[in-house]
Amino acid sequence: MTGQHDLSPHILANVAAALDEDVCPLSSMGERGIESRYAALAENDLTAQLIPEQAQAQATVITRQNAVLCGTAWFDGCFKALDPDCMITWLSQDGDAISANQTLCEIRGNARAMLTAERSALNFLQLLSATATLTRRYVELVAGTRAKILDTRKTLPGLRVAQKYAVRTGGGHNQRIGLFDGILIKENHIAAAGGIKPVLEQAFRMARPGISVQIEVGNLADLDEALNAGAKLILLDNFDLDGLRAAVQHTAKRAELEASGGITKENLREVALTGVDRISVGALTKDVKAIDLSMRFA
Amino acid sequence: MTGQHDLSPHILANVAAALDEDVCPLSSMGERGIESRYAALAENDLTAQLIPEQAQAQATVITRQNAVLCGTAWFDGCFKALDPDCMITWLSQDGDAISANQTLCEIRGNARAMLTAERSALNFLQLLSATATLTRRYVELVAGTRAKILDTRKTLPGLRVAQKYAVRTGGGHNQRIGLFDGILIKENHIAAAGGIKPVLEQAFRMARPGISVQIEVGNLADLDEALNAGAKLILLDNFDLDGLRAAVQHTAKRAELEASGGITKENLREVALTGVDRISVGALTKDVKAIDLSMRFA
Repeated sequence: MTGQHDLSPHILANVAAALDEDVCPLSSMGERGIESRYAALAENDLTAQLIPEQAQAQATVITRQNAVLCGTAWFDGCFKALDPDCMITWLSQDGDAISANQTLCEIRGNARAMLTAERSALNFLQLLSATATLTRRYVELVAGTRAKILDTRKTLPGLRVAQKYAVRTGGGHNQRIGLFDGILIKENHIAAAGGIKPVLEQAFRMARPGISVQIEVGNLADLDEALNAGAKLILLDNFDLDGLRAAVQHTAKRAELEASGGITKENLREVALTGVDRISVGALTKDVKAIDLSMRFA
Repeated sequence: MTGQHDLSPHILANVAAALDEDVCPLSSMGERGIESRYAALAENDLTAQLIPEQAQAQATVITRQNAVLCGTAWFDGCFKALDPDCMITWLSQDGDAISANQTLCEIRGNARAMLTAERSALNFLQLLSATATLTRRYVELVAGTRAKILDTRKTLPGLRVAQKYAVRTGGGHNQRIGLFDGILIKENHIAAAGGIKPVLEQAFRMARPGISVQIEVGNLADLDEALNAGAKLILLDNFDLDGLRAAVQHTAKRAELEASGGITKENLREVALTGVDRISVGALTKDVKAIDLSMRFA
């Protein structure tokens, strides 16, 4: 829903976590501050010590398969953390369709730093490009319908903001980022408040400006109750195709309708053709089929 | 290779990252210390405010598919962070084979805290169980051969130690955890040192006790040179089946041989039958097919 916030602190946090676990085991961090951390990192890459300290290198990254590129800022962050003078020239940008064997970027810098950063940088790029690629496939499958593709909170722990960026890069849209930027009322909340009407009244009172209120319903009777109570955004949980069509007809544009649950590439287009406004897909961010990338030193 | 170190700091770091991104956007953290962080987290779950503050709840987690369970400590960490008095009773343990519709655990505690922790906890469990499940499938495919299944450094950034634990839980073995606990000499290191013999001499001098020295070779001539220079652990990069058989025969147990590159479930058993000692598989940790889990409130 938001998606407009600054990515930089998230990129820094992700890069630090990746480099720490690859080069600097938590137990050895001790009282060390961030400023001396990367010096320690470089020394901890045992194999890189086989390369002369001042040696320079150049390398390219190629993709071995068709994909949508995503994650260049995270990739850059890994190299720059270890060698601020490292030069990275991208031939493609986030969101570009890339083809098998295409060169994605050229890198020049300190050889040790490049070898140390290589795997962490590629791990970001192969993951985020995978998410962007899968999202674009889903987006293409609903082309020409009114349905937007959305992600969920079923994400890889610690990588939520990065994955949600990848979904946008692939042409998808973000559901709420977390529990803090949107209200999504489910069965338990309804039960605790004593019904759909009272829970919605309470939520509308509570919601600050900019915070959306969405309610999940499991059948047409509950949908009707939600509409009557003024719901403007309704999640249809695990409705079959007939149920979705009936919901769209009954709602008659009084609210935005989101289909969710059990949606696969195989049934996606049929779901979109029911006329729902949004389709949320957990598979976009909980499953990963890493894009096959390779870094080659000249 | 190590795998014996304490997981607790990694679990705490993973859980904090997951809860922060779900409930407490980085930008709102400010100068807040860890001790007051979780109080802020609970308030930030807007929807949970619809539940009375002192309400108690109970829930169960079930699996919707067959799998190997993994990640219970990460799951527990999410609930305990938000409600230290939360009681979680596991009916299965990490490493157990679990069947579709089986109940995995029972949870009792503060209702708001349980709703807030639910998604982060399930995200850990669905991810780590996926990795353990995939690993066990690979391990079963090489049953009766001498080959051990190993992971790689192709992991999800920030989740390396957790994923490597899941690989062990599934019956696999860990390659080095990071760049700090093993030397793996590749083409660029060989080139910089002026050849296989000089690079190995340098690496043996450098390696502290407990640090393994492995060298990657691309053909039989280089394998021979590595063996003559005293290599005891050799990675055969992208060898075809005939090449692997020839390498095993030529090595005649003078060194441990690891096959790597292009290994899929389809060709895995054939690779194992060549007689290699180790097979490393990037797919174990770079790909994820999340296990389908569900939490149900009573």
